[in-house]
Amino acid sequence: MSRWFRVQSIGTLHRPDDPGGEASSFFDPAIAAEIEIDARWEPGLAGIEHYSHLVVLFYLDRASRRRKAGQPRAAEDHNDLSLVGFFSTRTPRRPNPIGIACPRLLNRDGRLLTVQGIDAWDQTPILDIKGYSPRDELRPGAAVPAWLTSLWERHDSERSSDYRPWERSVPQAE
Amino acid sequence: MSRWFRVQSIGTLHRPDDPGGEASSFFDPAIAAEIEIDARWEPGLAGIEHYSHLVVLFYLDRASRRRKAGQPRAAEDHNDLSLVGFFSTRTPRRPNPIGIACPRLLNRDGRLLTVQGIDAWDQTPILDIKGYSPRDELRPGAAVPAWLTSLWERHDSERSSDYRPWERSVPQAE
Repeated sequence: MSRWFRVQSIGTLHRPDDPGGEASSFFDPAIAAEIEIDARWEPGLAGIEHYSHLVVLFYLDRASRRRKAGQPRAAEDHNDLSLVGFFSTRTPRRPNPIGIACPRLLNRDGRLLTVQGIDAWDQTPILDIKGYSPRDELRPGAAVPAWLTSLWERHDSERSSDYRPWERSVPQAE
Repeated sequence: MSRWFRVQSIGTLHRPDDPGGEASSFFDPAIAAEIEIDARWEPGLAGIEHYSHLVVLFYLDRASRRRKAGQPRAAEDHNDLSLVGFFSTRTPRRPNPIGIACPRLLNRDGRLLTVQGIDAWDQTPILDIKGYSPRDELRPGAAVPAWLTSLWERHDSERSSDYRPWERSVPQAE
């Protein structure tokens, strides 16, 4: 049996490039967005500005919660007939629609965090902020399924972008 | 005002090295543990075995939920007087006690996932599993506060371990 727990928003995402509605299915991850932490939690942010990156958990409040596992589907690369279950994808339709992002922290001004690299709608509720810790989150050489590599290659050929934070090192000493 | 949402367990962590009680404050991250996904979600796991690492979200059900930000505290390294708020640490006392780990996936047997590198109590409820995706989670060169680097150095000098997944590459082609 499932156990249920309650979680709460501790802030809100503001993104200037969200036109609203259903038209925009993805955002330019290079565009800066702002996380506004609720005033009551501001003292918890002390020192966060000494991290170059954050781990952000957010609640996908416009995704419908998945109630059944459903059958595995063919991977998105049509040359690959691998069957893929939802846990193997980043679909927002999950039993718990919680998203994760590891954006660059560009600036902190009190309880306003300017970040680059968060793929979520304007007004998305934020659940947690942690400093990105290489010991906890950096897994060099991690292997992914072939269908995902193919998908990335197709995306890269369709839209070129300089935003490749998984490759670049950030400058030292901030 | 906070918005509240409900989340549910989708599985349970089993770890053989948890003696129970309050005595054990940390686990050997190199010890293998098992994630048992609830039967109803098993079809969602199709293809997860083609990831070398997972992103696991879990609910810290034995942590008391933080209700106030509290004042920032001196960093754990006593040579460093930096003041640190809870968001800047990995304390389980958070407004939403959700933990994250990026363990190695050693084996999948149906709905049983054997993983290495998850720091949570036996019987911890699992909220979500995603494949570790370098594009989403790998941030080479991410900078952390000086107090955290000092803390790591002290830990390393106190207990040597070969388990350093943030440095190692995993073998290719699984």
